Amino acid sequence: MKIVETPTEAYAHTDHWRREGLRIGLIPTMGALHAGHLSLAERSRQECDITVVTIFVNPTQFGPQEDFGRYPRTLQEDLLQLKQLGVDMVFTPPRERMYPEGFSSSVQPPAIAEPLEGVRRPGHYQGVVTIVLKLFQIVPATIAYFGQKDYQQLAVIRHMANDLNVPIRIEGCETVREPDGLAMSSRNRYLSPEKRHAALGLWKALSHVKAEAANGQTAIATLEKQMETILYDAGVDRIDYARIVDRDSLADLTLLDRPAVALIAAHVGPTRLIDNLVLDD
Amino acid sequence: MKIVETPTEAYAHTDHWRREGLRIGLIPTMGALHAGHLSLAERSRQECDITVVTIFVNPTQFGPQEDFGRYPRTLQEDLLQLKQLGVDMVFTPPRERMYPEGFSSSVQPPAIAEPLEGVRRPGHYQGVVTIVLKLFQIVPATIAYFGQKDYQQLAVIRHMANDLNVPIRIEGCETVREPDGLAMSSRNRYLSPEKRHAALGLWKALSHVKAEAANGQTAIATLEKQMETILYDAGVDRIDYARIVDRDSLADLTLLDRPAVALIAAHVGPTRLIDNLVLDD
Repeated sequence: MKIVETPTEAYAHTDHWRREGLRIGLIPTMGALHAGHLSLAERSRQECDITVVTIFVNPTQFGPQEDFGRYPRTLQEDLLQLKQLGVDMVFTPPRERMYPEGFSSSVQPPAIAEPLEGVRRPGHYQGVVTIVLKLFQIVPATIAYFGQKDYQQLAVIRHMANDLNVPIRIEGCETVREPDGLAMSSRNRYLSPEKRHAALGLWKALSHVKAEAANGQTAIATLEKQMETILYDAGVDRIDYARIVDRDSLADLTLLDRPAVALIAAHVGPTRLIDNLVLDD
Repeated sequence: MKIVETPTEAYAHTDHWRREGLRIGLIPTMGALHAGHLSLAERSRQECDITVVTIFVNPTQFGPQEDFGRYPRTLQEDLLQLKQLGVDMVFTPPRERMYPEGFSSSVQPPAIAEPLEGVRRPGHYQGVVTIVLKLFQIVPATIAYFGQKDYQQLAVIRHMANDLNVPIRIEGCETVREPDGLAMSSRNRYLSPEKRHAALGLWKALSHVKAEAANGQTAIATLEKQMETILYDAGVDRIDYARIVDRDSLADLTLLDRPAVALIAAHVGPTRLIDNLVLDD
């Protein structure tokens, strides 16, 4: 497994593989890998000839009050797991290689970045689409894999790639969960056993509204209220949003009369967690 | 010569050539081709195996009061000239292929876009870097050629490509001039014989300060004043700027004590013209 730290080297390897006609899968990550990330790499291993994972804790997508400083960094473990999976290259650049002195361009995210996370984390998606576009240039893959746990992020990246004609197919992969339903997240490492119990409230709320919707409840306001109640009952400290919106546009809905998705962002102690669940049509 | 109108087709041809190991030269233009554009294509023909020219009058880089509507469009002539030159592909997309409904991402230009044109044409460089990045994705060339007549634009594109890790070499090519010094420009078609005489004031002012600088004049304020006088004497109606700045950073200078460039933007009747001249070290 090649481990490279410079954009030039990562591009040279990727370009070489492309010219050989190989299909390249790319999995951009911030490290602290869990079963969700590994499932993306496994999918790439099945569908592509070459699998490239990037590990970079991108400072520009964290707000000033957020957890950039304490975000878990477990590079040696990460590399070991990726090697065991048969990953071909890991690109793990130091910060100054991605943002050298004088760096000043950026990508403005598409309109779908505005609601939900866009409201709660101003500048977050600008940081995300800028680093993702950079990685797409450095590793011009055939397919890039992203987890559906970051549902809006996946939509934002799809729209950005489409708007800017990036010739990489964007694939969303199903959220991997603990046996009790908790979505895998690098930030789960922050949770004490007690807080972990509260965190499970996200999954409880999401699966409850999915069942209610399947039973014929169509009033969005009622369903959203039920999510809030379940979240607070579970011990969540603060809800950023608990919403049911149009599955494609993320637009507000009043009635559950079209494909929809339920999305939650909530704080459990100092930890902010997100999760979502697509509701049956 | 292939003439293609869809991004998908343009990418497919380019990708095919890349996989064959061919060097691809790209010349993005807005059409209304003149000897300046043709010199870029000739340079690409010398340095690359494949030459691709794009023709697209990009609406997003024109301000609301600018000349988008009347910008010269001479597609049939352009195609004939490019075919005679041996160009391999022309990409000439309709507007809705580049900006389909729902298009909403963009590229924020680097800091070097802020002075000069950035002040006079707000939003212009955002339009430029967005379309250029899109073209770089659609035609992933080896080298892209731009004229030095748009001096700041070339710097902006270089910085953008570098910031965003675009794997295309950016080459600036010398300005092509009429025998009397007038820089080739698609907008010269707007000029009546009388206005053409006034337009020549740009070249007169630039060559004057170059000579003065060579003679040892180092006071920027004096040199800039002389440019203004020459421009008004020639019959220019309005000066947007007539400046001498740092050649690399475009930063203000007081003394001509480092590599510099003189840049002018001025209005001759309803026509806005720009030109520049690098001063000897």
